[in-house]
Amino acid sequence: MNAQEALRKISDEKPLVHHLTNYVTVNLVANVTLSTGALPVMAHAAEEVEEMAGLASALVLNIGTLDPGQIESMLLAGKKANERGIPVILDPVGVGATSLRTRTAERLLSELDVAVVCGNAGEVATLAGLDAEVRGVESLAGDAQSAALQAARSLGVTVAATGPVDYVSDGGSALAVSNGHALMGRVVGTGDASTSTIGCFAAVAGAAGAETVAQALAYYGRAGEVAAGSAGVEGAGTFEPRFLDALAALAGDPESLDGNVRVEELSVG
Amino acid sequence: MNAQEALRKISDEKPLVHHLTNYVTVNLVANVTLSTGALPVMAHAAEEVEEMAGLASALVLNIGTLDPGQIESMLLAGKKANERGIPVILDPVGVGATSLRTRTAERLLSELDVAVVCGNAGEVATLAGLDAEVRGVESLAGDAQSAALQAARSLGVTVAATGPVDYVSDGGSALAVSNGHALMGRVVGTGDASTSTIGCFAAVAGAAGAETVAQALAYYGRAGEVAAGSAGVEGAGTFEPRFLDALAALAGDPESLDGNVRVEELSVG
Amino acid sequence: MNAQEALRKISDEKPLVHHLTNYVTVNLVANVTLSTGALPVMAHAAEEVEEMAGLASALVLNIGTLDPGQIESMLLAGKKANERGIPVILDPVGVGATSLRTRTAERLLSELDVAVVCGNAGEVATLAGLDAEVRGVESLAGDAQSAALQAARSLGVTVAATGPVDYVSDGGSALAVSNGHALMGRVVGTGDASTSTIGCFAAVAGAAGAETVAQALAYYGRAGEVAAGSAGVEGAGTFEPRFLDALAALAGDPESLDGNVRVEELSVG
Repeated sequence: MNAQEALRKISDEKPLVHHLTNYVTVNLVANVTLSTGALPVMAHAAEEVEEMAGLASALVLNIGTLDPGQIESMLLAGKKANERGIPVILDPVGVGATSLRTRTAERLLSELDVAVVCGNAGEVATLAGLDAEVRGVESLAGDAQSAALQAARSLGVTVAATGPVDYVSDGGSALAVSNGHALMGRVVGTGDASTSTIGCFAAVAGAAGAETVAQALAYYGRAGEVAAGSAGVEGAGTFEPRFLDALAALAGDPESLDGNVRVEELSVG
Repeated sequence: MNAQEALRKISDEKPLVHHLTNYVTVNLVANVTLSTGALPVMAHAAEEVEEMAGLASALVLNIGTLDPGQIESMLLAGKKANERGIPVILDPVGVGATSLRTRTAERLLSELDVAVVCGNAGEVATLAGLDAEVRGVESLAGDAQSAALQAARSLGVTVAATGPVDYVSDGGSALAVSNGHALMGRVVGTGDASTSTIGCFAAVAGAAGAETVAQALAYYGRAGEVAAGSAGVEGAGTFEPRFLDALAALAGDPESLDGNVRVEELSVG
Repeated sequence: MNAQEALRKISDEKPLVHHLTNYVTVNLVANVTLSTGALPVMAHAAEEVEEMAGLASALVLNIGTLDPGQIESMLLAGKKANERGIPVILDPVGVGATSLRTRTAERLLSELDVAVVCGNAGEVATLAGLDAEVRGVESLAGDAQSAALQAARSLGVTVAATGPVDYVSDGGSALAVSNGHALMGRVVGTGDASTSTIGCFAAVAGAAGAETVAQALAYYGRAGEVAAGSAGVEGAGTFEPRFLDALAALAGDPESLDGNVRVEELSVG
């Protein structure tokens, strides 16, 4: 589904996107979801996650500030999401940095039917079993393109490896998304929020194939470009409010994306 | 108490407003409280909530990201607040969406002497036992005016149902507050923060009757109007910083509210 | 180490600064750390804090929203940091307001080898055993200079007492930092984030003596001055994005600090 159509459906359906996410970037994630036209909800207690996932159109799991209770809740919510057939999107924040994160990402991928994994190059490379340098939650190196392809093949899910260029693969095809701006990497949580945007698109697209994921990232990156070009933006601080404005403006006028979506199909060996 | 007088007292007394609130909007809630002239404090551990509530002038309970430990802490803090006679303000975020939230709101209302309930139309309707559509934490429909009146009557507390027009009732009278701007609904947490503003007003007003609550919401809505008219505001992202500026500017110059507070008494059947 | 040299080293080394911090200001703290050029990571689970501290170049402990699990994790992470010889920086938020906070700060100072304590005047005075008025997490009075000196002497660590003028002492010497702007006190979390900036400087300086701490605060305060003078800043709301921009701009061009660092050595009785 292309970005314009997805944004129109999001606007019509106002899908509820249930997040179990980290407390560092949760506010940005919620505002990005709302700016995209969907309704964010955060709920983490084991006592209510199944019921909340039962109301949602997509489930986003982000392991940025894990603890054992949250892991159990992620499994409960994820199983409910699977039972209902709504897409589960996983952001494996910091996987490879600690064994808790690595084990948890593996457990979620093994016990749940995850539709999309979206992480930075180092995180995706780690999941693919490749060498990677992850420092805390930042990826410092790695070939994002082959990481996405190999992770998609080994995990059997759609994988997005985000960075200056985002790479998306379902194991068969591979797409490169060159929308975006360097200031996005200077705001904490823009990676987490890109995963939520994929969640919004997946919520209305039914399936969450490589094309839909790439279109979500192209819309998200295009908003970054628009924001970076706005009057008064002189750094990451002034960029962030403009970025939310741009997401909402594009969502309110999807046609303004025409000609500005840079998604390219790559040849896959 | 009218808004001008309340803001002057808040500036003089710098009341401490203790919050047990959700982690999604906590930063905005704290900044709104500070901008209004009060001192926010967040503390949730059972080991310290009674002591912190013992220092505070108002207690705000927000069930947006509940878990069992937080519920117990809310009851401890609430009982301490009741013992001391400081107002307890409840924001029943997402009540009706899950049974945990519904049961918890009912339990807090039953075990504590709550002074004010402030929620969106759907949440208030749910508490009043009326039909309502709550999707996650967003209310999508409902007659806010009758919801506020009926909830106030059935719960025996002052109730505010916020929306494009806010309705406040103590069961006897009913007030409509038409200050505000549509951009407020596009920023995550403006509902939560309106409840904190009521907490600030209640902290200095002693009682938290319908008039005081309506005046708090009028001040809050007026700040939204001022912010929306500020240079450079093009969406929710750029609105939020200006909104904090406007809250602080009005709090620092309460007379600028003269003639700009739109609170209307409604005839009640 | 002076600010210019520290910022150059931070830019070169991109140190990972591990935080166990409060959920109120965590987003600002992370963005300030990133704007300074370091990499923030937040991880609080007992299951991973030692491993994460094992990857970090500094550890920041902030007791703003304590609970028992977090205290245990702080001790685990702190012991690992001590074992590795990386600096531990403690922000005793709200110490003196509740006994949980006071006991915890004392316990952390007793069981860990803390390099720097950074708090407001009331918090530092409390740790020094002096009279202080702490309302929630705000300090309302107190002689910051003597508090810093006495706390440094009684605790045997470098102590910073922040306020309109920041005072830093290692027990022997005392420094006054007069950079800063009043708007910094109107944004929730600028105190917490100043502690993180000290963490960034300590991460690359090896030792965290009074001069390094004062230089970190001078850089931080200078960014506040630059931000306050930016176009369009009319209050705390519009100040905050500009503050992040200014931190990043100064970090990217350390020479622009030349002649603008106001650190003065005080005569100590």
